[in-house]
Amino acid sequence: MSKKAIVLLSGGLDSTTVLGIAQREEYELYTLCFDYGQRHQREVEAANAVARYYQVQRQQTVKIDLRVFGGSALTADIAVPHERNFDEMSQEIPITYVPARNTIFLSYALAYAEVTGANDMFLGINAIDYSGYPDCRPAYLEAFERMANLATKAAVQDGRELRIHAPLMYMNKAEIIRKGLASGVPYELTWSCYEGEELACGTCDSCVLRLNGFAEVGVKDPLKYVPIA
Amino acid sequence: MSKKAIVLLSGGLDSTTVLGIAQREEYELYTLCFDYGQRHQREVEAANAVARYYQVQRQQTVKIDLRVFGGSALTADIAVPHERNFDEMSQEIPITYVPARNTIFLSYALAYAEVTGANDMFLGINAIDYSGYPDCRPAYLEAFERMANLATKAAVQDGRELRIHAPLMYMNKAEIIRKGLASGVPYELTWSCYEGEELACGTCDSCVLRLNGFAEVGVKDPLKYVPIA
Repeated sequence: MSKKAIVLLSGGLDSTTVLGIAQREEYELYTLCFDYGQRHQREVEAANAVARYYQVQRQQTVKIDLRVFGGSALTADIAVPHERNFDEMSQEIPITYVPARNTIFLSYALAYAEVTGANDMFLGINAIDYSGYPDCRPAYLEAFERMANLATKAAVQDGRELRIHAPLMYMNKAEIIRKGLASGVPYELTWSCYEGEELACGTCDSCVLRLNGFAEVGVKDPLKYVPIA
Repeated sequence: MSKKAIVLLSGGLDSTTVLGIAQREEYELYTLCFDYGQRHQREVEAANAVARYYQVQRQQTVKIDLRVFGGSALTADIAVPHERNFDEMSQEIPITYVPARNTIFLSYALAYAEVTGANDMFLGINAIDYSGYPDCRPAYLEAFERMANLATKAAVQDGRELRIHAPLMYMNKAEIIRKGLASGVPYELTWSCYEGEELACGTCDSCVLRLNGFAEVGVKDPLKYVPIA
């Protein structure tokens, strides 16, 4: 019987790389995408395109009701940050932080794992580029995994051990891209930009991180960007 | 400054008792109710009635998208169990178990806590009457609390310590009712029945537990039931 994995898929560079890694490890793939009122639908479309590319067993988009949240640039009407340098980004918890987001995402992944019979959950979080997010750290993930193994019928009654995999945890963006390119990840299908325009802006934090990563690897990003004026 | 609490409120007997307890402890109350495609809306209406009664600061209902779930009598089209005795109920994880439900509920509570500035989260879970649910045990709750204190900006950057309170954990139904009656909990506003009819059925597992509890206390349940034929 094939081993099954839940992969949290945003349609961005990191989560798509993780999907490529899980495929290489021969998991039967179940992707989970969240529609949480992002400022644009580009991310959700990218996730669907990537899931089709990988011919996953099931791609599930779940709507997240954000009425309990507030104050994040990714969901509220706050301008996303542009043209900042790395030092500015790393000194504080970013404005793009959404309270308890990864905890909610992983909780849904846990339910999906229980229902599909998957024991493995993959996600693209990273302790380096996103050091400001408390829920992107190894200690957080370990605590979630421990909780998950006490939470479900799968673990408690059926003796299944749930594992969380964050294969990008200690990679910087260039290392992630190098790993992905070696696995044939279709980066042209992914979307990283915080804005939802036709072309990626190239100047938001997320675009800057991505472009710097490709530059460091010495490969041209296959995604289309707004031409520099 | 007043201390704030998130109270998970289903509109049932247990969570309403917890709300009464939190009020007695002088918390500023923020209730959180989930609309997760219950078979009926009676629970959600009961939660709103209870929240009004307690004049909470904010009552928030959040829609939960259950597309990743399946196989529970509370959400799918499976008959709810009737006329079973306690031994039958306690020997297995109940059919009414919803995968990872409390983990998802608590994750939203965590986000709500961060946004409102609450450090305390109350819920009505119980290790005795619901011993079959893995996510109703103290070890599970402790693991969630530990994870929560690693997950959020509130805990990590602002040094707030998040605490989960499950004051009913070791009480049986009669003890819960006794405690609630002493605190003036309006049980006539609560709803426990798994069915969503005009009157409570009196025969589903949930009604049976409740009626046995009132019988043990020696007080008439103020809720209206279908007359016994």
